[in-house]
Amino acid sequence: MAQRFAVADLGSNSFRLVVYAWGDGRWRRIDEIFEAVRIGAGEDRTGALSEEAIARALATIDVFAHFVAASGLSPSEVAFVATSAIREASNRDAFLERARAVAGTAVRVLEGDEEARYGYLAAVNSTTLADGVVLDLGGGSMQLVRVAGRLEADAASWPLGAVRMTERFFGDDAPATRKQLDKLRAHVAAELESAGWLAASRRLVAIGGTARTLAAADQRAQELPSFGVGGHVIEAAALDELIERLAELPPSERASIPGIKPARADVILAGAVVVRGAMEASGVDGVEVTEAGLREGMFFERLIDADPPLLEDVRQESVYNLAAQYDIDVPHARHVAELATTLFDELAASGLHDGDPIERELLWAACLLHDIGMAVNYDDHHKHTRYLILNGGLPGFTPREVALIAQATRYHRKGMPTFGELAPLMTAKGDAALLDRAALLLRLAEDLERSRDQSVRSAHAEVEDGEVRLQLVADGDVRVARWAASREQQLFERAFDRTLDVGR
Amino acid sequence: MAQRFAVADLGSNSFRLVVYAWGDGRWRRIDEIFEAVRIGAGEDRTGALSEEAIARALATIDVFAHFVAASGLSPSEVAFVATSAIREASNRDAFLERARAVAGTAVRVLEGDEEARYGYLAAVNSTTLADGVVLDLGGGSMQLVRVAGRLEADAASWPLGAVRMTERFFGDDAPATRKQLDKLRAHVAAELESAGWLAASRRLVAIGGTARTLAAADQRAQELPSFGVGGHVIEAAALDELIERLAELPPSERASIPGIKPARADVILAGAVVVRGAMEASGVDGVEVTEAGLREGMFFERLIDADPPLLEDVRQESVYNLAAQYDIDVPHARHVAELATTLFDELAASGLHDGDPIERELLWAACLLHDIGMAVNYDDHHKHTRYLILNGGLPGFTPREVALIAQATRYHRKGMPTFGELAPLMTAKGDAALLDRAALLLRLAEDLERSRDQSVRSAHAEVEDGEVRLQLVADGDVRVARWAASREQQLFERAFDRTLDVGR
Repeated sequence: MAQRFAVADLGSNSFRLVVYAWGDGRWRRIDEIFEAVRIGAGEDRTGALSEEAIARALATIDVFAHFVAASGLSPSEVAFVATSAIREASNRDAFLERARAVAGTAVRVLEGDEEARYGYLAAVNSTTLADGVVLDLGGGSMQLVRVAGRLEADAASWPLGAVRMTERFFGDDAPATRKQLDKLRAHVAAELESAGWLAASRRLVAIGGTARTLAAADQRAQELPSFGVGGHVIEAAALDELIERLAELPPSERASIPGIKPARADVILAGAVVVRGAMEASGVDGVEVTEAGLREGMFFERLIDADPPLLEDVRQESVYNLAAQYDIDVPHARHVAELATTLFDELAASGLHDGDPIERELLWAACLLHDIGMAVNYDDHHKHTRYLILNGGLPGFTPREVALIAQATRYHRKGMPTFGELAPLMTAKGDAALLDRAALLLRLAEDLERSRDQSVRSAHAEVEDGEVRLQLVADGDVRVARWAASREQQLFERAFDRTLDVGR
Repeated sequence: MAQRFAVADLGSNSFRLVVYAWGDGRWRRIDEIFEAVRIGAGEDRTGALSEEAIARALATIDVFAHFVAASGLSPSEVAFVATSAIREASNRDAFLERARAVAGTAVRVLEGDEEARYGYLAAVNSTTLADGVVLDLGGGSMQLVRVAGRLEADAASWPLGAVRMTERFFGDDAPATRKQLDKLRAHVAAELESAGWLAASRRLVAIGGTARTLAAADQRAQELPSFGVGGHVIEAAALDELIERLAELPPSERASIPGIKPARADVILAGAVVVRGAMEASGVDGVEVTEAGLREGMFFERLIDADPPLLEDVRQESVYNLAAQYDIDVPHARHVAELATTLFDELAASGLHDGDPIERELLWAACLLHDIGMAVNYDDHHKHTRYLILNGGLPGFTPREVALIAQATRYHRKGMPTFGELAPLMTAKGDAALLDRAALLLRLAEDLERSRDQSVRSAHAEVEDGEVRLQLVADGDVRVARWAASREQQLFERAFDRTLDVGR
């Protein structure tokens, strides 16, 4: 990967330096330094950055600058950016001058609409959001962006950040009172009245550390298996319950709730109340979380050569990007996908299943990715593929969908598919049958392409009475293909309630 | 990886086609097809390959040949080899002629000493065996090779294979009787009397599917966490117990014992008794298992440009090979190893620990490998590194050592080291303290090399009273290094019972 880009994000709650790399059809985050600077601490009372906060900030900027220099990043490959706490401080200019001297480069202060735009780019390039609202809650402010047809339609920023609201509405290290909560709720509601376009938003996607923390806590509370929070939906009722639990504890004990990290324990309650208020104002029952944020928004602007910089198809790009991280046999993987989706279509046309397009997409993704686990070890590579998919992540897919893809690859060689510890994610009716079909079709396609040379050009399903006969169009001999495919009869019968004849 | 080599191993129990690839300083197995052909079935009674067995064999050879052709492997890149069942059959020549016609190339029949030699090459290149005996138990025969100074000193082959012994000593699908077991034991002991050089072997390394299966069953019986059987030692007493449990069950039920695969359930008892007899004859209390076998022996002959083809240092090569599978920052990893081992040596010289050379080697390995998990995801890459080490394998290290290396990398960023589910492997006194030291030194070295530019050229430990002061020799500023290292004070104190002063 030949290109790099670093973002030093001087946020109100924390400072974070993130380095991205891209090239050869893939991209990834390659380094990250985090420091909980809390530059916005005390600002809500005084209107200014405190001397202690400035000292912590400059020390961290110094570390970032040295890191950037040591990494050999050129000035054009690095962006130092500041958001609301710095933007709105009365001593902003003095601070920026000192920061510039330490950083060796100017710190770009993002205006509210710029901050909102990067949040929007992050959300639209990491989810399937086409119409709805993006919520970006930071330490100092909250941005909301209305999205219509994947484009930015309206945007506004409110001084409703989690650090700020904590300082204004909650005092010392004590449980929150009903009165404090009600006051904050009323404040959020009043503030958001100005955005009439919020009502009836249909879909709300949240970015930022507060949203990620709430999602992690919600996954734990629901006892869901977790491999990242991307795509997780927090329901309103669950968020209400979480707020109750947080309010009962003094801030110093809130990290005892699974999923709540100590560095965020004191401000998470205010953040949760603000998010809940935004849901109320938007008229949605759930908020969807993405792991991407402001920094990814800035990175996408560099990565994507389009205006606005939008990935054409987020889910497809996620699959291609994950596949490209590993040294797989690309023509093989693509041909397996081609064979499997053709059989999927033909069996649907014959009425053996519904031919759901989402199911087809999951099958396609499983085919593209089925061999990435060979990077770990040939032995058990189906299990390693599952691990790499779950832990590598597929932005744009829900946790349930990621689990379905991973589990289909897990069974691409042998065994009868089950969900194992991923079962709690399988909330849709018929998920077990879907997994059977996906695993079977991937496996059958892999068998037909067992010699990895695309010599079985295509395979067709002829359905007759209780039997499905496989017709192969091939260059040369198909003995390996038939030998391999003949082993799938049991799973075929379970998946399609028909016997399979692979010919001879 | 530009080069490939395929071995089609026509064994007495199973046929297996394995493809290896190598180049760019690394090698790996990239494909494998297995079929439980049992070509030796019935041979012990008749002296000949049966027509049914020949039909199964030719069908599988046909599949292998088509696979090889489709993979674009040239004749010089493929070896079809046969071992004892075919070698000793009265109708061998007729079979070989038919096999040649199907394979499109001659099948090379390995003589007993050649088979023994490849087993020896597999064992000596996948373990630290320098002096001892290599045991290779197949379906038809058993080879024993005495190794002295890593060289082949004596070798012999006996018709004591697991399939053969099963047919001769055990009948139908019934539990084994005491009498049957005693007869087989006596037969093995009598056969092995011919090898006087066996006695007092000191160390016994076993290869082959029977040994791997016994090791897997033993790991399960001991309730040990398993990530492959390489390096596992089966104690004599444990093998005796396993033989008892196997004998009590009819062959058809033996796969109910965890670790015993159905395809091997019928012949595993005889195999276990033969291995136990070889231990008896060698005067050893335990047999060490390696995952490498005949096929790897043939591959090593291609890979290693030396005579005999021996890796210079098996453990070191394992670490380099695993590191080279992933796209890591090599100068960074090597520099971390350099910094960490220097501190290790200096702290030992100051009397803060024993400076055990094995511990030093584990630390070095952990340093080399610490970042491979970044291939999976930057987030939690320490956890991914652990997964990749455990599942990628490190031939030459024991399971305990692999676990120590993996666990040190697991804690190379944060947290207080523990063994978690790997605890049952930690049988040596002081393992927890060893892990603390290794994780701490890796972490400290990583901090000093946090900017990945080798600007901290070396670090030295000055011990004075209750304190260790870090002296850095650096090009330019060391602020990032000190900032990062200052976070390790707690773990340093736990590991060395001294406070750490990183300077300022």
